[in-house]
Order: sequence, then structure tokens, then C-alpha cells
Amino acid sequence: MWDDAPCWSGWGPADAPIRSLPETAAPLLRGLGVDPERRRAPVELDAVRLAEPGLPEGVRDRLARVAQVHDDRLARVLHAAGKSYFDLVRLRAGDGIPAPDAVVVAADGAVVEEVLRICTGAGVAVVPFGGGTSVVGGVEPLRGDFGGVVSLDLGGMGALLDADERSLVAVLGAGMRGPAVERALGERGLTLGHFPQSWEYASVGGMVATRSAGQASTGYGRIDELVRGVDLVAPAGRLDLAVRTRNAAGPELRELDAGSEGVLGVITQATLAVRPRPAVRRYEGWSFPSFRDGIEAFRAVEQEHVAPDLARLSDEAETAVNLAMAGGGRAEQALGWYLRLRRHKGGCVAIVGWEGTELDVGRRHAASEAVLRRWDGIPLGARPGVLWRRGRYDAPYLRDALLDHGVLAETLETATSWTRLHELHDAVAGALHDALAAHETPPVVLCHVSHLYPVGASLYFTVLARQQEGEEVGQWRTAKDAACQAILRHGGTITHHHAIGRDHAAYLEAEIGPTGITLLRAAKAELDPAGILNPGKLLPGVS
Amino acid sequence: MWDDAPCWSGWGPADAPIRSLPETAAPLLRGLGVDPERRRAPVELDAVRLAEPGLPEGVRDRLARVAQVHDDRLARVLHAAGKSYFDLVRLRAGDGIPAPDAVVVAADGAVVEEVLRICTGAGVAVVPFGGGTSVVGGVEPLRGDFGGVVSLDLGGMGALLDADERSLVAVLGAGMRGPAVERALGERGLTLGHFPQSWEYASVGGMVATRSAGQASTGYGRIDELVRGVDLVAPAGRLDLAVRTRNAAGPELRELDAGSEGVLGVITQATLAVRPRPAVRRYEGWSFPSFRDGIEAFRAVEQEHVAPDLARLSDEAETAVNLAMAGGGRAEQALGWYLRLRRHKGGCVAIVGWEGTELDVGRRHAASEAVLRRWDGIPLGARPGVLWRRGRYDAPYLRDALLDHGVLAETLETATSWTRLHELHDAVAGALHDALAAHETPPVVLCHVSHLYPVGASLYFTVLARQQEGEEVGQWRTAKDAACQAILRHGGTITHHHAIGRDHAAYLEAEIGPTGITLLRAAKAELDPAGILNPGKLLPGVS
Repeated sequence: MWDDAPCWSGWGPADAPIRSLPETAAPLLRGLGVDPERRRAPVELDAVRLAEPGLPEGVRDRLARVAQVHDDRLARVLHAAGKSYFDLVRLRAGDGIPAPDAVVVAADGAVVEEVLRICTGAGVAVVPFGGGTSVVGGVEPLRGDFGGVVSLDLGGMGALLDADERSLVAVLGAGMRGPAVERALGERGLTLGHFPQSWEYASVGGMVATRSAGQASTGYGRIDELVRGVDLVAPAGRLDLAVRTRNAAGPELRELDAGSEGVLGVITQATLAVRPRPAVRRYEGWSFPSFRDGIEAFRAVEQEHVAPDLARLSDEAETAVNLAMAGGGRAEQALGWYLRLRRHKGGCVAIVGWEGTELDVGRRHAASEAVLRRWDGIPLGARPGVLWRRGRYDAPYLRDALLDHGVLAETLETATSWTRLHELHDAVAGALHDALAAHETPPVVLCHVSHLYPVGASLYFTVLARQQEGEEVGQWRTAKDAACQAILRHGGTITHHHAIGRDHAAYLEAEIGPTGITLLRAAKAELDPAGILNPGKLLPGVS
Repeated sequence: MWDDAPCWSGWGPADAPIRSLPETAAPLLRGLGVDPERRRAPVELDAVRLAEPGLPEGVRDRLARVAQVHDDRLARVLHAAGKSYFDLVRLRAGDGIPAPDAVVVAADGAVVEEVLRICTGAGVAVVPFGGGTSVVGGVEPLRGDFGGVVSLDLGGMGALLDADERSLVAVLGAGMRGPAVERALGERGLTLGHFPQSWEYASVGGMVATRSAGQASTGYGRIDELVRGVDLVAPAGRLDLAVRTRNAAGPELRELDAGSEGVLGVITQATLAVRPRPAVRRYEGWSFPSFRDGIEAFRAVEQEHVAPDLARLSDEAETAVNLAMAGGGRAEQALGWYLRLRRHKGGCVAIVGWEGTELDVGRRHAASEAVLRRWDGIPLGARPGVLWRRGRYDAPYLRDALLDHGVLAETLETATSWTRLHELHDAVAGALHDALAAHETPPVVLCHVSHLYPVGASLYFTVLARQQEGEEVGQWRTAKDAACQAILRHGGTITHHHAIGRDHAAYLEAEIGPTGITLLRAAKAELDPAGILNPGKLLPGVS
């Protein structure tokens, strides 16, 4: 069952060789006050502390009659946390609590209904678990006031159920992960085009439940823009919204499914918009004199409807670190020389990409290029695009390597209007700097813009600092809270695509107001009267 | 206050000259069995039957302390109905019941809060009223079990409150009507680009509350795609969702505002995406050998991302009637000759339009054209486009003229996937034919496709038949029900952009399921515990 499961203490296949940082990272580590020679390895699986599985009497047997039930050490530890910095710090240190009392693998929606019925009756909390890639505590098996907690693994629902090439939609099982989705659709000449950084493990159900955005979502649309139908199984009933165009039949309930985070129900399958598999993928680097110029260029391509499908612009700090990490190869030396010549030294690099037919990509590339040049953009050719695509899923592996070196490494993200984007960027970066400097671990804060909308764009921050040993959790909690407060003060959303989970629940009310919270509570009470679904997530103050 | 109000018994300004049908309509009338010389005029205003205003003791005074209150005959009749065929038949016959006990004009959101407080306390139903253009009974002043009913006219909230040219959003008062929106935005070089057929009277609040689609929404997006923020005032609280990009902060509650139809709260202002006012508007006619070819062409432009901003394709019947109504002018004769020559005689005509900068329109026109030609589309030049634009808001006036002639004239609309579009078209047209033929009033049923999505498209039907005198309501109710049943059987949405209101409430459960209904009821109970807001609308079984 867990053959292709990620490593319990980090990212990637359990049996993959441990990755190490490139030698070019040494100056960065030293700059953070970290000794590049030192290692802080995770404990062994056998050393992870776990409570005894403690489901109420008879529940395990009842569940086992309808579904696979696992309560061995590996299964429980694999479902004990997601992949946030908090999660990894905890697991690497050998703290497996909380872990689920059991992991239940459901084969289809009818089984999910049965499992919810059994758990509602027995007072057992249920935490839906897709790919387990949440970085906001979304799959942490909190039991709230219940007598037990199971992790409901949706990996058994991993099939392409239907595809309609004429209307460009596909029905996908909730447990299907990114690569399986593309394999199955690819056989029919289709693509979902949804490539979050967690793509290797992210599941369809998880994507929909968390309103995931992929790296090329500027062009393909976020998952919530691709949802045409959802089957949501809740303790009180089933909300089955079949393929629908946009319509005027009252409030759009698919938009309650998307972002429901396992709190309102279990998404068992989703009907998503797909596209013909692109014949051409053209990715390239561009340089801009400054972050400000690059943002203006991105605003213009987006508002003039000629945006690339993928558009990410690193700020000055991220550009400098990326160039330094790329090392001193001949091509990079040539690039540095070229940028100095063009007076872009100290500027910002963007990766932009177009996907589609040759005709379509050619046309759109020309249209984008004309606008990007208006803000003194300089094309850097295909090589930066090739390198970026090659490394597009590497960050979680690199984070493990950084953790091995005793480096705090985490990301957070937000979005706002173009009007407030610079203000928000500076406020969040400043808050992170100040908070971590106060711990005497001054950070490196990197940022990129990576999802464009007519009204605004997202900001994605990466934070690196020396770990404050023994105080890892408190150190990051202070900084994360400072960043969240800055986001709320400066008109950002508390999350552009990581979702709310456990870690953002306290900030949601500031974003949607008390009436928004009571509306979500009302929906929860209607669909899950006993409150067994994913306690402590999304809604504040539910433990 | 009502200076610019529509004629109480029909469409248009009260003092506008009565329009008559063109002479070319005579054969059509005769074909329906209608004598073109006969007239059935509406009664005079003084002859309209009204119940005495009957608000509970003291309520009128309390309301008058915070808002304007009108209970004269004109005010009450103007708010006694929307503009559906049912509404007009009733009013023209002199039946003003139900009418509101009073019309309350609110100046701002704070006044709305006060009005809701007073009415909740007094047990008086409140029907929000924007432009009064609902064609599904959405503004009918039903009182349910309450002791009175007021129509809450939002016309006093008619200002542009803010505009952000950089992020392309504007904050608009709920009572602003189409022309005022475009005037105010136009002064800043902006446009909303939202032009429903009811544009002259449709209000911002009404558009959002009903998920309105405009004629150019294929390009500009429906109103629910343009909503960036909504301020909704409900008896239990205020849901104020400020400007937001797409995000992952839980379910998207703006999607509960959109389509809430005055049942969940009163929309007092909306933040909508706007665009730079287009320098170029290029509209033209195209001909296709058949409806099927035209639909294939539309599917291709949409799925290949080169759709015009406006795209409407008439089926064979609508094309034939439009050409006949256009009459025997020299240009039309030349067109007929040309189409015969090209073997498109008996084919279908489409109107397509592009708006934007000269560069943008030129580029997109070329891309669309290449695809339209692939399905044997033939451009007919600018003249059909000019004629269509000139008459784009005429249909409601023409309907009044048809009613004067004793013709049943109504529209209904749906949408589905491309895969089921033909099946749905034939099923609905067939159901309308059969139902009206059974009344011995065989109809003419016209249809066009007018909103394109990657997954599917809308179908907009126009029905014309001889009125069955004395049985007008029953005659249409049978036919409308047959059409709705056909829609549900063949995978259509019960409404693509007319909304649910009173007339579609019984069909909503078939679309969103019992769980969907209970979710909406839960939201209603939370926001409007006393249930005073717009009884009998949206949710089935509430009278």
C-alpha cells in the first residue's frame, strides 16, 4: 500500500538517496551562521514516539469489515503529519504524537459513506488524507474531543473514471496523484496542466479541497477554476454536483466544495476541465532592471490578456541567491557578464512559459514579448527555462537537505491587488527579518511573484535562517505570526494557495469576518452535525 | 424618484411612444393564427386592482424615520412585479396583487441595516428591488406568513464609490443601473463591459444577486466572474468581502453572495473587475451551412482560446425569422442572393464581435477568423453587426408590441456541455412545440447559442404563439414546465443567467440535490433567522 509513499520524515520516495546541497550553497550557509560540515539527522523510524492505538472498543473491527485498516508503525507515522516545517521538525525529532489510531483506506464513495457512519456513531474523528502534502497542518490527526481519530486515506480511489474529449472534462478519483493524472490523461491526448510544487504526491481530492494553484495556473487556471463538478460525501448526505457550465441557479455550491479542507465532507471524485496535451512547451528566462519593472511588465501582460501560461518573477534577493546557487559554470559566467553589460546587474530574473499548439504558442509568445520589452525586459533564452523546468519539483528535497544542516527553511505565500503588491512585499519581508533577527537568527528572505490575475498577483516567500536549537518551533511560530499579521495589515490574503488548515485558522476571521465564519460553521453543522470531520482545521477555535 | 422608472405595464420609459411591430412581422403573426389588425391593450393605471396598504401598526412611521417611504399607486404598481411574461399578463389585465404595502428607498448600507432591523422586529417581509427587471418572479412582493411586505428599492445607492485603475476594479453602489455604470466608468476611461439585454434598467446589485450574463460575457466574463468583493447586509450581520484575488482561504463566500437573490441578504455595493474602455468595437455577421457547423466553429474558437468577445449563433429557425423580419431592403436581398450562391441558404447566421485596442482586436479577429472558416463560415461583413448592435436592447420593447397583438412572447435559457448541446436544443424545442400545440396554439420556437465556455455553451430560446385568451397563464405554465422538465432530463442547467426567483424554485433541487438545498437553507437560517428576506424565492417550498 505505501510502496510509493513519501519518506516519513521528509519528501520523496522512502528509498531515494539522500540529496545533498550543491557546494555552491556553502557561502549561503555560512552567511546564516551555519557550519556546512555539521549535520542534524532525523531519528530512525523505530525511535519515533507513538501513543498506543486507542480506538473505542469494536470500532477497528467494524471499519475493517468495509475498508482496509492499518495501524502498524509506518502507516501511522506516514499519516501523523503533513509536510510543513513544523511537521518535519516534529517528526525528525522523533515526536509522532498526534498520530492516527488507525489508517483507513477507502475504495470508493460508498465505503466513505460507511466509514463516516461508523465513526459518527462511535465518536471517532476522521481526517481525510490525499497525498499528505499539506504545509499548513491540514492533515494533522487531531482528535478534538473525540475518543479516537482515523486518517481516511483516499489512495484507493486513484482511477480516471471518465473523460469527455469533446467538452474537455475528466472525472478523476480523489486519490489520484499528479503523475497518475497526467499518465492517464496523456493516454487520451489530454492534460490537466496542474503542476503544484507538490505535484509528485498531491492528490486530486487534496487539490480541490485546498484550492491548489499550479506553477502554470496563470494560463491553465487554478484548480478551483477547473472544477466542473465535485462529489462530496458528508455524514449528513452527499453533495453531488455534476458537470455544469457556469449558471445562475443560485449560489455556486462547487465553491463551497473547493476549499472545504475535509471539514465539510470528503471529496471522493472531481470533474475537472482538461486541455489537449500541448505540442509545444516554450520556457525561457527574462531579465528586468528591477522587481518594480518586472512587476509592471507582468501587470501589463496580464491586464492586456497576453500573459504567458507560467510567469514567475524573482525579487532581487531571490535572483541573487539563484544566480549564486547556479554556480560558476561557463554559461552562468557568461550570463553574469551579459547582465552587467545590459545594466541589469542586481536586477531580477523571470521565468516565463507558453504551452499549446505551435501556432498558438508562436502567436502568444510574440504578443507577450512585445509587452515584456516595454519594461526593458531582456530575453535570456531557453537555458534558464530548461534549468527551471528540470528543478521545478526539487525544492522539497532541498528543504530536507537544509534541515539536515540545521537550517530553518520554510515558505509562505499571499496575494493582493497590483496597487498594494509592493507594500505587501516589503511589509512581509520586513516582518520576517525583524522577527528572526530578534531570535538572533537573521534570515535570508526570498520572494517571487508567480500567479497573475487582472486584479493582482501572488507573492511567494522563502525563508532561510539558522535553526535555534531546542526552540525550533517557537522560533518559526514567532516569525510566521509576524508575517501573517503583516499580511492582514497590508491587504493580503492569508493564503493564496497553501490553504488554511490548522496553521492559518486563527487568521481566517480577519479575512472573511465574523459573518463569514458563522456561515462556514452553519454549513459544517448541516453536513457534519457531530463534528467528526477534520477537527481543528479551517475554522478557528475548534480543537 | 420614479422619473426614469420603466413603464409599469411593460418595458421602457413610461412616457416613451408605444412601439409597433415592423410591417414585415405580419406574415409571422398570421402564421401564428393572430390577426395583425387586432389589439389587446393594457388597462389604465387607475384600473389596476390593489389591496389597501396594510403594514402592521406603526411600522410605516418607523421606516419613514430612516428612509423614504412611498405607498402611492404608481410606486406600489411599479414594485408589484418584474418583467416576465407572467408578470406582464397579470399587470396588463389590471391585477396588481400582490403589491408591496410600501416601497422603502434606502440611501446606504446603514439604512438597509435599520430597515431590516425594523422589519425583522415587526414581522414584515422585505423584497430587495434593484432595476425590477427579473423575468423569473424574483422581485414579486410575496409576503409569505408575514403581516406585511415592503419592496426595498436600492435606487438611492446609485453612485460609483471608488475606482482603482491600476488593479482594474471599481466599487459600485447596488442601485446603479447599466447606463449610469458606463457613464461613470467612462469618465475614467473604463468600462464594465456588462451588457445584458435588460441593461437600460438592470442594477449592479441585481446583476450580482442573479449571476447575470451580458451579451459580451464570453469575452468580458459573467458578472459572477467579475465580482471581487461584495457588501451583503443581512438581518444577522454584515458579510463584507473586500477586494480579493483568488485565494485558498477556505470556501469562496463571494460565490454565496452571487446568486443569493435577495434571500440571504441585501447587496449594498459590489467591487467589480473593469477594463479600459475599448478603442475598437468590431462586430460582424458570419454565416454557417448549418447550426451544427456553427456550433463546431464556436466550440473550436472557445476551446482554442481565440473566441470573440461576443458570439451568438442563431439556429435555422431564428435565422429564418430574423432574415424575414429584416425585410426586403436592397442589402437584405443582396445577402439572400449571396447566401444562396454560397449554398448557405437555410443555414445559420452568427453575430461575432471583438472589443479592445486596435492591436488586440486585429490580432484576435485574425485568430478567430481562421478557426471560423474551418467550419465553412463565411463573413457577411459589418452590416449585420451594426444592425444587431443598433437593436441589441429592443427585444423587451418588441415583446410589449407582440403582447398588444395578443401574442404569447417569452424567453427561457439553459446551458450544458458541448457534448449534450444538440440533444438539449432539440429536446427543449420539441417540448415547447408539443406543449403549445396541445393548447392548439402551435408556437414558433427560435434559439441561439450566446455564451461560450470551454466545457459548453448556453441556449437561449424565444417562444412565440397565439395567446389562449383567458388562459394565458396556464397556457404558458404548461409549456414552461415542459421545457424545464426537458432541460433537467437532458443535462441542462435550469437557468444560465435568468436566475431562480419564484419560477424556477421548484426545479432547483433537481439541479443541486437535497443536500444542496439544505446547505442553502442553513445559510438562510444563519443570515436571516426570521426569514423575512424575499420569501418564496430561490428556495422551494417557502411561500
